[in-house]
Amino acid sequence: MKIYGDIQSGNCYKVKLLCALLGIEHQWVPVDILAGDTAAAEFLSKNPNGKIPLLELDDGRCLSESNAILNYLAYGSELLPTDPFLLAKVQQWQFFEQYSHEPFIAVARFIAKYLGLPEERRADFESKQQGGHKALTVMETQLGKTPYLTGDKLTTADIALYGYTHVAHEGGFDLSHYPAIQSWLGSIAGHPGYIAMA
Amino acid sequence: MKIYGDIQSGNCYKVKLLCALLGIEHQWVPVDILAGDTAAAEFLSKNPNGKIPLLELDDGRCLSESNAILNYLAYGSELLPTDPFLLAKVQQWQFFEQYSHEPFIAVARFIAKYLGLPEERRADFESKQQGGHKALTVMETQLGKTPYLTGDKLTTADIALYGYTHVAHEGGFDLSHYPAIQSWLGSIAGHPGYIAMA
Repeated sequence: MKIYGDIQSGNCYKVKLLCALLGIEHQWVPVDILAGDTAAAEFLSKNPNGKIPLLELDDGRCLSESNAILNYLAYGSELLPTDPFLLAKVQQWQFFEQYSHEPFIAVARFIAKYLGLPEERRADFESKQQGGHKALTVMETQLGKTPYLTGDKLTTADIALYGYTHVAHEGGFDLSHYPAIQSWLGSIAGHPGYIAMA
Repeated sequence: MKIYGDIQSGNCYKVKLLCALLGIEHQWVPVDILAGDTAAAEFLSKNPNGKIPLLELDDGRCLSESNAILNYLAYGSELLPTDPFLLAKVQQWQFFEQYSHEPFIAVARFIAKYLGLPEERRADFESKQQGGHKALTVMETQLGKTPYLTGDKLTTADIALYGYTHVAHEGGFDLSHYPAIQSWLGSIAGHPGYIAMA
């Protein structure tokens, strides 16, 4: 299988991290968004939404959306619960990530790290801070009760949220105010097979 | 079980529609966002992210995020595939909905329908049009190939996307440019048990 991605993107890195944790062999195909790779006709034929990461199976079938890819690759492993309610809880956290976390933390990081925080984007950058801190507070509340987001075990929900949370400081978020998140980040980084983003 | 929601919200209506299609009995608890219901302490104790819809089981466990609720309630029914790749495809479309569709179409509709398109929000409203049309084009591409988003059968992916697509005109989107979407909307509305939003 091939995975098209940019390892500096949290959405792509989560897929790479899952593959490392589960020992899933794959061919990583580097994609450069800023160079227009995802707007090329061949790429759009694989994902009409023009986004990475993208999973391409050996038979040519393609799957997009980072968290859908995580759950597909983790199917049948210890990282995806089989209990229907827990499975739904994993998805709850992943939808939370895509709607209430990534649009603030990943976008603030993109403006600061990729674009160099130009003056004309400063207001946009600042506007992401409140939403990002709200998302981190929701996570802190849960992680103050359970070691992982859905309970006692690492799941694809944690991998989904780890992607951008562990580099949130690059978007201007000071994680020292979130001790439970910091402890959780350390637990994930200590798992056998863990790989860093860079 | 209780479902907390506002029937005029596409995210809440999708859950109501699924319950109607599957004949799932529940108590609907009306929630008024604009009146501050979701910011009340009791509600936040059930969903720290302060959003509807929210599912509360009889044993007190709560589940948030509309698409996670859909997949939980549809578990074991004909609306949720068991094949791992098809199941991932359902989630792909649902993550697409929350990231690339809802933030444009639902927000444009909110500004126009709920707020009455005040002059100070017009630029915001206009800024949602391009992204909304891009999302509709991605859907049109798929629905030109298969009758439902993941193939020949209605799934929770279709219900997720139906929520805001069928009222996209209230956000200023002219669906006459999207014949495959129009056909798909008609197919869903023809399903036994279907209920309208209002």
